[in-house]
Amino acid sequence: MPESYPMNGGNGTYSYTQNSYYQKTGINVAKRMVSEAIGEKLDINNFSSGSNSFRIADLGCSVGPNTFTTMQNIVDAVQHKYQSQGLASKFAEFQVFFNDQDSNDFNTLFTSMPKERPYYAVGVPGSFYGRLFPESFVHFVNSSFALHWLSRVPEELLDKNSPAWNKGRIHYTNASDAVVDAYAAQFTKDMEGFLDARAKELVSGGMMVIITLGCPNGMPYAHLAAGIMFDCLESCLNDMAKGGLLSENQVDSFNLPVYAPSPKEKTELVERNGCFSIERLELTNWRTEADPRGDLRACVMHVRAGFESIIRKHFGNDIIDDLFERLLKEVKESFHLIQSSYMGGTQLSVILKRK
Amino acid sequence: MPESYPMNGGNGTYSYTQNSYYQKTGINVAKRMVSEAIGEKLDINNFSSGSNSFRIADLGCSVGPNTFTTMQNIVDAVQHKYQSQGLASKFAEFQVFFNDQDSNDFNTLFTSMPKERPYYAVGVPGSFYGRLFPESFVHFVNSSFALHWLSRVPEELLDKNSPAWNKGRIHYTNASDAVVDAYAAQFTKDMEGFLDARAKELVSGGMMVIITLGCPNGMPYAHLAAGIMFDCLESCLNDMAKGGLLSENQVDSFNLPVYAPSPKEKTELVERNGCFSIERLELTNWRTEADPRGDLRACVMHVRAGFESIIRKHFGNDIIDDLFERLLKEVKESFHLIQSSYMGGTQLSVILKRK
Repeated sequence: MPESYPMNGGNGTYSYTQNSYYQKTGINVAKRMVSEAIGEKLDINNFSSGSNSFRIADLGCSVGPNTFTTMQNIVDAVQHKYQSQGLASKFAEFQVFFNDQDSNDFNTLFTSMPKERPYYAVGVPGSFYGRLFPESFVHFVNSSFALHWLSRVPEELLDKNSPAWNKGRIHYTNASDAVVDAYAAQFTKDMEGFLDARAKELVSGGMMVIITLGCPNGMPYAHLAAGIMFDCLESCLNDMAKGGLLSENQVDSFNLPVYAPSPKEKTELVERNGCFSIERLELTNWRTEADPRGDLRACVMHVRAGFESIIRKHFGNDIIDDLFERLLKEVKESFHLIQSSYMGGTQLSVILKRK
Repeated sequence: MPESYPMNGGNGTYSYTQNSYYQKTGINVAKRMVSEAIGEKLDINNFSSGSNSFRIADLGCSVGPNTFTTMQNIVDAVQHKYQSQGLASKFAEFQVFFNDQDSNDFNTLFTSMPKERPYYAVGVPGSFYGRLFPESFVHFVNSSFALHWLSRVPEELLDKNSPAWNKGRIHYTNASDAVVDAYAAQFTKDMEGFLDARAKELVSGGMMVIITLGCPNGMPYAHLAAGIMFDCLESCLNDMAKGGLLSENQVDSFNLPVYAPSPKEKTELVERNGCFSIERLELTNWRTEADPRGDLRACVMHVRAGFESIIRKHFGNDIIDDLFERLLKEVKESFHLIQSSYMGGTQLSVILKRK
């Protein structure tokens, strides 16, 4: 049973809705790539004649608004392709399947949907690490900034007697090899499940776009701005443990279930699965458009929108405001580290086609 | 734009989840009817070979648990039919589309779903008076206790200068002919929209089961226990207006958008639409299993779970508890009327097949 880490729901100050424009920037960078891939690579004549609607799934859609923009982009690109080939009537109707975990705030998603939309909208509750759809059901799968969330914290990290017991740490950034290996193994297992499920659900010729955090081949995560951010969060939690606001054991047993794969790892997993061809796979630099180093408060708000629920679950409600105030201070103090972090691509974009 | 009247969400004392076992009783009465219809009338060989999953929609599903029981019953009956005809592999997979208005509490629906379910679950936000699915997409449509909700209060009832201005009344029970006619016209318009949409969405040979409140041909609604309940609610609101707790104008402009059609009305609408054959249409008596006259408090709680949101929207939050306490008293005092109300069938069950 995969664990559940929803983004902050609702529409308030700390909500994902209000704090997800970095993801939006990343999606904008991917937009042209997706349009090109649909224009050049989508085999629209290849799809089964039985289906009369074009079905798109957004896996890990959260609560909007980014998912609405992304889905509109995909519908536009597919429509354009059909029209340019004189096939506009073949798929006159689109269906968009918005997926996220059961605990996602679907109420906010559904009530904030664009009223005028060129598709039938559907919500799909459940983990994308398992099956979500019948066989050969969807034509296009998108997943933006979701698949770097592991299905769970690797088990070894919760065992005090394991070499992967991650004492004083909350992530594999700067951690022991045993911890890094445990994370990598969990990522491998999760991606295998993901690819197996999608291989069954995608029609032959169907496409899949996956955008996640990524890391250059062989580079330690500590060289990246995100790794430094995790280190700052860890440092705040350790300070709070020292101050008696929480216990050391609570920090030792807490680990962020987030993994940023390298192009090499991703490629190997797709090739081992064998059902997909890789149409494009690259690290892109989304910071050219909006550099998070420019606004540290916004940066911390994004971390809060994404991680508050998992931190709250582990440490309770009382520490939240204090923790994120400390984090902002810590990040400001670490500004020189962030400034000197790796400046290249850290967004891994992958476009696959079902063979 | 249809208006939105969600059942009480969540899982608390006044929730639909906790106060919907009358509807459950009604669904149990319908269960055998549905199984028989699937066994005898569903043309499973007739369905397009293009689809590889059997798709069921529950329109107006609310928040559970009734919808889960109903969907399980339908899946069981369809599976049994396929197995008995040696066609079990044809539709190995089921997909259930849970539909209700955008403002329905889908979060509660999704988190209370049975973990082990023999279908892929999907939520569909939107009014069933318009289109919800692509053409020829669903094989079986169910709608239990939802279609007696009109899409809106008939416009004439909101015009002080209209003969249908419903002064001192909140429903067509005991109202003028102009009011009764306005309700009937709205029902006709809504059902036409509903049947048009479903005619497009159901595959040829697909079936539809609709269970609603109903009323014998030619009988005034005041003869039914539900009509007496509406009269009691009206009487409480008028008392509160007299006592200055709310204004007369507020009561005059409030109308329950609920209509209980007769078998004759329903038959005529289906025949006029022309796309469906009527496989069964009858008034059944669900009170044989659980007579609401036995427990007046439970009865009032059911009224509250269904109508609280619309009353709250019109009259504000402050009167709610007071109103429903008054209603319980009023209903107790009207017990002799309820006891002498019409004892026959007041649940209209209709089974249609897409030609």
